[in-house]
Amino acid sequence: MEKNDEREEYTYDNEEREELTEERILQMLDERKFKELKEELENNMYPVDLAELMKDFTQKQLVMVFRLLAKEEAAETFAEMDSDMREMLIGGLTDSELEEVMEEMYLDDTVDVLEEMPANVVDRLLMATDEETRQQINQLLQYPEDSAGSVMNVDYIALRKEMTVADSILKIRQVGLNKETIYTCYVTEKRKLIGMVDVKELLTTSESKTIEEIMDTNLLYAHTTDDQEEVAQIISKYDLIALPIVDHEMCMVGIVTVDDAMEVLEEETTEDISIMAGVNPSDDSYFETSVLEHVKSRLPWLLFLMLSATVTQMIMNHYESALAVMPQLAGFIPMLTGTGGNCGSQSSTLVIRGISVGEIEFGDLFKVIFKEVRVAVLISLILSVVNGIRIIIMGQGDVMIAVTIGLTMACTIVIAKVVGCTLPLLAEKVGLDPAIMATPLISTLVDISTISVYFAIVSAVFSL
Amino acid sequence: MEKNDEREEYTYDNEEREELTEERILQMLDERKFKELKEELENNMYPVDLAELMKDFTQKQLVMVFRLLAKEEAAETFAEMDSDMREMLIGGLTDSELEEVMEEMYLDDTVDVLEEMPANVVDRLLMATDEETRQQINQLLQYPEDSAGSVMNVDYIALRKEMTVADSILKIRQVGLNKETIYTCYVTEKRKLIGMVDVKELLTTSESKTIEEIMDTNLLYAHTTDDQEEVAQIISKYDLIALPIVDHEMCMVGIVTVDDAMEVLEEETTEDISIMAGVNPSDDSYFETSVLEHVKSRLPWLLFLMLSATVTQMIMNHYESALAVMPQLAGFIPMLTGTGGNCGSQSSTLVIRGISVGEIEFGDLFKVIFKEVRVAVLISLILSVVNGIRIIIMGQGDVMIAVTIGLTMACTIVIAKVVGCTLPLLAEKVGLDPAIMATPLISTLVDISTISVYFAIVSAVFSL
Repeated sequence: MEKNDEREEYTYDNEEREELTEERILQMLDERKFKELKEELENNMYPVDLAELMKDFTQKQLVMVFRLLAKEEAAETFAEMDSDMREMLIGGLTDSELEEVMEEMYLDDTVDVLEEMPANVVDRLLMATDEETRQQINQLLQYPEDSAGSVMNVDYIALRKEMTVADSILKIRQVGLNKETIYTCYVTEKRKLIGMVDVKELLTTSESKTIEEIMDTNLLYAHTTDDQEEVAQIISKYDLIALPIVDHEMCMVGIVTVDDAMEVLEEETTEDISIMAGVNPSDDSYFETSVLEHVKSRLPWLLFLMLSATVTQMIMNHYESALAVMPQLAGFIPMLTGTGGNCGSQSSTLVIRGISVGEIEFGDLFKVIFKEVRVAVLISLILSVVNGIRIIIMGQGDVMIAVTIGLTMACTIVIAKVVGCTLPLLAEKVGLDPAIMATPLISTLVDISTISVYFAIVSAVFSL
Repeated sequence: MEKNDEREEYTYDNEEREELTEERILQMLDERKFKELKEELENNMYPVDLAELMKDFTQKQLVMVFRLLAKEEAAETFAEMDSDMREMLIGGLTDSELEEVMEEMYLDDTVDVLEEMPANVVDRLLMATDEETRQQINQLLQYPEDSAGSVMNVDYIALRKEMTVADSILKIRQVGLNKETIYTCYVTEKRKLIGMVDVKELLTTSESKTIEEIMDTNLLYAHTTDDQEEVAQIISKYDLIALPIVDHEMCMVGIVTVDDAMEVLEEETTEDISIMAGVNPSDDSYFETSVLEHVKSRLPWLLFLMLSATVTQMIMNHYESALAVMPQLAGFIPMLTGTGGNCGSQSSTLVIRGISVGEIEFGDLFKVIFKEVRVAVLISLILSVVNGIRIIIMGQGDVMIAVTIGLTMACTIVIAKVVGCTLPLLAEKVGLDPAIMATPLISTLVDISTISVYFAIVSAVFSL
């Protein structure tokens, strides 16, 4: 981004904003320039950036900066911190300060915070909230992890169908400031969700119309127990700003907003990618996960795959005499298994991603296999020929060997591509996560079939 | 989702909506029940679902359904179709119908459509738009692919700082209906962006205040030439509904909305995942990509990796005599390279994802290596012991062999984890996409080091 002097009068460039660095804040604290710091924090700092910037602060520094923030910014910054920082900060705040933070936070953030805190801190936080909020919190904490209920916000604007547009705008005026998202209002009758109205609609319609006349009754919604990923995908597919969440009696209980949906999708993608690499996903980020937890999440697949590789070994031992006669045959094995593994993982990855973005489903199985087989045939032709030429040029074998390796490679590639595209779809069909059918498992299976095919062909060709 | 009779009076369940299936629409067309179909389409169908449902329709069927839609729905449905459907539909519409569609579409959608159409269709579409729109379209088409300019919308609400809140609401009333997102208004002065106001703010402030008093001047924005992924990440990080896009003179030219940001992030993730599997990403989805294009996108990495595997082969050929004496040594190779490859891909995948969500950066290199080395040491201890026991129980070797394999495995795992976590960070540092340092490349590199280490240790232990 280029700089431009003229605009500095009014605006604050992304790069310039970074000038309020960790070092500068610490220096201003040291020099007790509190007023100046307070002003800079107010004008040039976003809560999410501030939380990141303070991650190495001591408790004392954290509390000092926190006390300079306006109420709303303080609550938002608190919500953006990681759990260690929060715990440290809570330890340094007075009860009344804590009360203010709890009052300002949106309820879904409060619940997130509580879920990560040790019991004694939770008690202290709950003491700092009023009775009504406490009840709402307890209810939210009961929804299963990863459910719509666990990510929803209970603050939204509810209208009645008899209200006029003017009444509605007045109601937004009165209660809107405390609601996270006011841009979609929900029409309820005896708590049941019966319609919705965009604020855009309210602002562009005659003030005397009633809500019933303008409300949209073709509703999209989800239940509290629905999976959060499903909810996020509905929001993404239909380009919504928020999705209403209802209980089993169709009573409105909250909304999930688009920013939460984006976060859910990012988390779910990280989870998928981890599983695809043979790592059990964890809720914590890379650095937040301890060495022991890293070992625990990576070991199961490694053990399983290592032991599965025993099959390959048994097959090879069976052909020990062939290897004793022609030891140069072993040299081709890593290249053959490597190529097979790569071909298989290309197919499985594309299919896994296709399933997760909703393009491919089980019904497409034969369509996918047909496509992969054609791709495999073309690729194996090219690779076999190139590799055959290489073998002869580099003097690693004669034409017979080149043909044998080429034949093995062609079979391997076709098998790898078919296995690679089939397994994720089968997993999906039986209700497993397709992501487990990714590279590590596919490449072990492909290893086994490659070695079998290789030695079967070699034995036949060279009568070993 | 469970059914509940009471609510059907008002609402339409996700499942019930699906009742308007492809078959039912075709049947209603056959029976010429146009009025009924029109009503159902109006009340129970979202454009994105309708587009999906009609993907196997003939041109005649497509045009018949399309003509039943209200103007706005027609334009939205058109925007959701894939390029083949659009081309087919355009061929069946009259010029004046086309004009109506073009008029109703948001400009960013129009540009998307035009980018995918053959030249003759583009000409016809441009003929159907008015002069002013055509100029705007031409300007948008000039922004580089994947830039903020190419995904932005030029419709937004601009206010002046002298306006009062009441004036502003009036302005929204007048022009708002045609704007995609009205919830953030931008304050401009001589076209330069100087502030922004949330509609929430407008609705909850005294009507006599001026915009200058309430506008936020701590602005987030991006330039037309910025990468679309960067823009999407700013929207995600700061929980925005839209981000203003400015040119190099800080003049406001458009906005990118949160729904476009979600789409960009999904595309970019698909791209990353493809690259991580050794597939050059394409703009088209799995089925839209032809067999030849699939071959073209998968072949380069396969060729490169196959030829790299030659190095492994050369090392093994060097130890041919050792293999002739102890052919059972070859049997351990697939297990060793497999385990090494899996360990390496676990580390590289976690680091690549950490980089792409912004948790890990080059400065963390040593912190990451230190963590991976500790993880590697623990994992190699466990795997070596388990594998040693297996070797002895299954009679695949004596204690000497078990120790040799264990030692090789430990070295391999440490090397794999260090290489796996280092390469993505180095790639990031030199401006390459870290995703290319994923499983395929890592496992080839790890193969080479595994084989080297294995034969070095074997030669030393058994003096071969």
